[in-house]
Amino acid sequence: MPQPIVQPVDIQKYQATQKQCTTDLLAVEEPLEIRLGYGPVHQRKVMQLSLTMRTPGHDFELAIGLLLAEGIIDSYQQVFQIKYCTSEDSHEISPNIVRVELQAGHCFDTNRLKRNLLANSSCGICGKASIEAIQMTACPALPKETIQINPAVLLSLPERLQEAQQVFGYTGGLHATALFEKEANILFAREDIGRHNSVDKVIGAALYKNLLPLHSQVMLVSGRAGFELIQKAVKAGVSVFCAIGAPSSLAVDTAKAFGLTLVGFLRNQQFNVYSGEWRIANKK
Amino acid sequence: MPQPIVQPVDIQKYQATQKQCTTDLLAVEEPLEIRLGYGPVHQRKVMQLSLTMRTPGHDFELAIGLLLAEGIIDSYQQVFQIKYCTSEDSHEISPNIVRVELQAGHCFDTNRLKRNLLANSSCGICGKASIEAIQMTACPALPKETIQINPAVLLSLPERLQEAQQVFGYTGGLHATALFEKEANILFAREDIGRHNSVDKVIGAALYKNLLPLHSQVMLVSGRAGFELIQKAVKAGVSVFCAIGAPSSLAVDTAKAFGLTLVGFLRNQQFNVYSGEWRIANKK
Repeated sequence: MPQPIVQPVDIQKYQATQKQCTTDLLAVEEPLEIRLGYGPVHQRKVMQLSLTMRTPGHDFELAIGLLLAEGIIDSYQQVFQIKYCTSEDSHEISPNIVRVELQAGHCFDTNRLKRNLLANSSCGICGKASIEAIQMTACPALPKETIQINPAVLLSLPERLQEAQQVFGYTGGLHATALFEKEANILFAREDIGRHNSVDKVIGAALYKNLLPLHSQVMLVSGRAGFELIQKAVKAGVSVFCAIGAPSSLAVDTAKAFGLTLVGFLRNQQFNVYSGEWRIANKK
Repeated sequence: MPQPIVQPVDIQKYQATQKQCTTDLLAVEEPLEIRLGYGPVHQRKVMQLSLTMRTPGHDFELAIGLLLAEGIIDSYQQVFQIKYCTSEDSHEISPNIVRVELQAGHCFDTNRLKRNLLANSSCGICGKASIEAIQMTACPALPKETIQINPAVLLSLPERLQEAQQVFGYTGGLHATALFEKEANILFAREDIGRHNSVDKVIGAALYKNLLPLHSQVMLVSGRAGFELIQKAVKAGVSVFCAIGAPSSLAVDTAKAFGLTLVGFLRNQQFNVYSGEWRIANKK
């Protein structure tokens, strides 16, 4: 049975200093642990990949979207199986633990995932080695010619995202991400309490459908655009990324470095283009 | 020299489909790596504790606030030294790498920090062990009698936070956290591109001043209240936590479990009380 994504709660509502008792709807936040099974058939290993707070739903998409972002897979064919874990004692399904089994033949760099490396006490590795790891050197720049997007189409996207959001109106507590075709048809829209999760879920959904690289689609997020969202988008081949809110400096730098079209403050019939303006179609 | 926290960028601004070239200010986002030196004098070790995106500034507060949240320290006296790392070759300071040296005699559980534990391929540990780790069993509930806060004082806080925010007005891209005394005087206000960071910075600032536990203060965040923010607040002893935005289900559950007063949607002369209403002073 799927877990609910909203939950009622009794509250005291103050308007100025007048109080009334009423009910509010909360966005559900639950932990999700993602475990990764890998290695050859007779030497399978399991790694705890992440423990993150998320809104239940589309958990398998979240898991494979994260695997793509972390560089563990680049296609769904590399995944053998995804399932919720089952308790050994009670055989009950654990709805907050997902286990992804990679194909036995699929290799990836396990060392990259061990973040809490113990080094010796010398500080000689301060030369930015670990920071450079986030620079995505292994990720190719986007091709220059992907799509041309009409400004009028961009202006229409926030309303379409809002229509697709089922929960936001009730709780004010969920972020949303949508993937559009260039004519503004929605391919996928996903909501989550975490911004990163909603992006992972959309990319995971596209990965399932074998749509990557997403050169011809437009991604829109309901919040701000930070580096990590841009990183995820670039890895999925998105060439036009839009945010309702502000981009950060590193988001803009990264978008420029990889040739991504980055649009910010897309709301109220306005938007700003921070990089890759050549994909915005000029009106005659 | 401190790093800037805003950065100008040339943009194309579209109002409907009319374009003009102009300049926008971006919130600066830079990686911060936090390294931890620990152990006895002759056997010092270094661990990479975290690599996070943040707005430069108050980095040492961010570091010790995070150490508190992770259960590594509970007072500033356990810290021997904090500094930016220096390159061995050029002797230049690395402004994005902070190294915290714990006192030689201070012990903590290093195993708790190793998230990517490799287990065997059996899934027998699926019984929620790792999810229970986030339940903060080691953290005591807040005392019931801490402060009584007047509704009129709560209603005044958003404006005071906004006054204290220097950057938000320019970029729309920063989260803010403030710590108030019960009469609404601001003790600390910090901004950051990451919500968690602004909370860590405020708690770190209070830790520096030896103000913990923060039973008599009120914390306000500019965004939403998720589980992890509540967790950080409870660990610092905050007994009244307010958010301009919505709380999540797990935030409310956690606030109730630890006796925290949780206020949400504190804006436009209104607010909702989700737990711990006994700390809201009743008008006569």
